[in-house]
Amino acid sequence: MGRVVVDVMPKPEILDPQGKAVANALPRLGLTGFTSVRQGKRFELEVDGPVTDEVLAAAREAAATVLSNPIIEDVVAVVDAASLDAVQGAQA
Amino acid sequence: MGRVVVDVMPKPEILDPQGKAVANALPRLGLTGFTSVRQGKRFELEVDGPVTDEVLAAAREAAATVLSNPIIEDVVAVVDAASLDAVQGAQA
Repeated sequence: MGRVVVDVMPKPEILDPQGKAVANALPRLGLTGFTSVRQGKRFELEVDGPVTDEVLAAAREAAATVLSNPIIEDVVAVVDAASLDAVQGAQA
Repeated sequence: MGRVVVDVMPKPEILDPQGKAVANALPRLGLTGFTSVRQGKRFELEVDGPVTDEVLAAAREAAATVLSNPIIEDVVAVVDAASLDAVQGAQA
């Protein structure tokens, strides 16, 4: 079973009030040293079988059109490391 | 500058209506082949300097107490690969 992970993060120039709230809360809880926190979304898309180039292309299209707003968010779609290992193991 | 990435995903046995909605929307847009979609959160915690063991321990405590609900969510905190490369490059 293959898995594509899509990470969606607010662009650096976009204000991120959720991340700001977390960053302000951490020192109150004694967790100091963090200069900045950004909050985004993570999607896990699963497929039967391995992640082929077609699957990855479909996942990238979904990432760019459905899962993120390209005006305010950066998006990365990558094959999940665990399922990549499984594919490479099967090929070896 | 170091960065810790915290991934928070709903536990497998927990219903995930957001992920379900995405999974139902994809075929309507011609993106077929995905058997399941899960939606979670991704946090990027930044620190000045490298990610030491203390920083990672603080990030893990934040991940378990502030950033996730351990009853319904699984959480993983890892050093961001890009900042890890930078640290290992500096040590080499």
